[in-house]
Amino acid sequence: MDVTSESIRQAAEVLAGVAHVTPVMTCAQLDARSSARVFVKCEHLQRTGSFKFRGAYHAASVVQASGETKPVVTLSSGNHGQGLALAAKLLGLSAHVVVPQPASPVKLAAMEAQGARLYVTDNRAQAEQVLGELSAGGAMIPLHAFNDPGVIAGQGTIMLELARQVPALDVLLAPLGGGGLLSGLCVAARQVNPSLRLYGCEPRGAAEAADSLRLNRIVPMPSPRTMADGLRTSLGSRTLPILREHLTDIFVVDEREIVEAMQFAYERMKQVIEPSSAVALAPLLRAESVLRGRRVGVVMTGGNVDLTSLWSSLAPPVY
Amino acid sequence: MDVTSESIRQAAEVLAGVAHVTPVMTCAQLDARSSARVFVKCEHLQRTGSFKFRGAYHAASVVQASGETKPVVTLSSGNHGQGLALAAKLLGLSAHVVVPQPASPVKLAAMEAQGARLYVTDNRAQAEQVLGELSAGGAMIPLHAFNDPGVIAGQGTIMLELARQVPALDVLLAPLGGGGLLSGLCVAARQVNPSLRLYGCEPRGAAEAADSLRLNRIVPMPSPRTMADGLRTSLGSRTLPILREHLTDIFVVDEREIVEAMQFAYERMKQVIEPSSAVALAPLLRAESVLRGRRVGVVMTGGNVDLTSLWSSLAPPVY
Repeated sequence: MDVTSESIRQAAEVLAGVAHVTPVMTCAQLDARSSARVFVKCEHLQRTGSFKFRGAYHAASVVQASGETKPVVTLSSGNHGQGLALAAKLLGLSAHVVVPQPASPVKLAAMEAQGARLYVTDNRAQAEQVLGELSAGGAMIPLHAFNDPGVIAGQGTIMLELARQVPALDVLLAPLGGGGLLSGLCVAARQVNPSLRLYGCEPRGAAEAADSLRLNRIVPMPSPRTMADGLRTSLGSRTLPILREHLTDIFVVDEREIVEAMQFAYERMKQVIEPSSAVALAPLLRAESVLRGRRVGVVMTGGNVDLTSLWSSLAPPVY
Repeated sequence: MDVTSESIRQAAEVLAGVAHVTPVMTCAQLDARSSARVFVKCEHLQRTGSFKFRGAYHAASVVQASGETKPVVTLSSGNHGQGLALAAKLLGLSAHVVVPQPASPVKLAAMEAQGARLYVTDNRAQAEQVLGELSAGGAMIPLHAFNDPGVIAGQGTIMLELARQVPALDVLLAPLGGGGLLSGLCVAARQVNPSLRLYGCEPRGAAEAADSLRLNRIVPMPSPRTMADGLRTSLGSRTLPILREHLTDIFVVDEREIVEAMQFAYERMKQVIEPSSAVALAPLLRAESVLRGRRVGVVMTGGNVDLTSLWSSLAPPVY
């Protein structure tokens, strides 16, 4: 099964009335900083707090439509797992999520609250092994976080929605981890805005995608070093060829820029975003030359962040 | 000059194209917690990060329209000062702001960034004295944060906007400090939704308004004890009679509830709000019985909060 404009349109039909049509924000200060006209696609306001719900729900609905009643299983650091947990609940399936450490306690709690069964493992290698055991012999249906065609098609619906909300975008920025989101955006853009230039945004501590695209093979990422917990993975076998064909270029962002971009989002835009989202905002804040004077869309992918330190600092004083 | 439906309509004309038409958010989890249908009026997304810009701009425009070129001056802990600083800049006036400590460093920096001249004083009594000196002999035009009819009319425009965005609200909740916001909402509601019940929401540590309304005199608030820095004042001579006539009732909220409501807004709604806004969200989170089953509007008044502890906790690790 390939990801096509048609499969993305079908995904949009499946998601209609289930996923939120997320709003688009503008911000005069962001326009001033970037010298661009910026449109922020607020997928951090999507159900479960990230865009991942779209792909997870669509992929799980494909499973359900085939008459399958076995549990679905995935490996996820959090947002795809949360999306799949809610999707399974809505569709009457059971969801199992294998989580490699380190994982955000907030995301673990959210997955459990949606009724998912969790398997927390020490690292990614161990998680892959547990996933293999769970899905052995077809006992559970694996739904990969970014390499599943149903997932990619679901993420592509963001492009259809954004094209209706904001006509004639010149450029679109999105965070780049496994490439599921950007693959969906690329395939959808071919149809609705063929001249759109799409840029992936990667943290320097997990910036293997540029190498993978240049070498045309998946460069492993054994020890990613970034706070952007959603972007610690390498590309997949389906996302690599799509991105090689369509992606215009990649911006690499360092950790200091991620914190600054979060600070900008919280203090100026009053939006709670997670570090992975901030990675796509950073190129605007440093006013990348190819963005200047352009109509630029940017996907805020999620807002699931651990704010414990904030609440402890705000603990009410004893009067 | 009285505050009337007509003066609020005129304020709306003045603010058209200058103030943002702020969005209304809904949140399934908030509806579930409150057993109500809740519409969140996002004035934390207003220019300068709070609704105060509306009243400040309208009041300053009245000054300017009279041909006055003297500086405007006010006493403010932050949001009205920020609103007035930007308003004055846009209108070509100069703004002076007297700030009683304790004041948020974030708000002080923002007022200075808008070009306001600041006078930081040790406490409110000293601030009143400085304000008196600055405006003595008509050297500057004082614009009171909540007792000025132009300010109140400006805040009332929120009600006109909300009534267009969300028809047939049963109840409206808003934070109650000096009463400027609620007075404007009350007068405007009389015209656009006469059966609307309006509730003021007060922190327990500065809950003098209930007494003031009952006794029909302004009960002083010499030592307010609340993190809701926008709500530490008593009512004013103009707001007391308006609220006595129109306000349905008051909800009192404790400091623990303020923190919990902020946490809900950040973690579930992904919105950065300040403690004063959280005061109006808290009655929904405790599912006040008079709200259940109702269509409830709630005004998020501002999002200017000091997040320093969060950024220091997120400081990038050295890899």
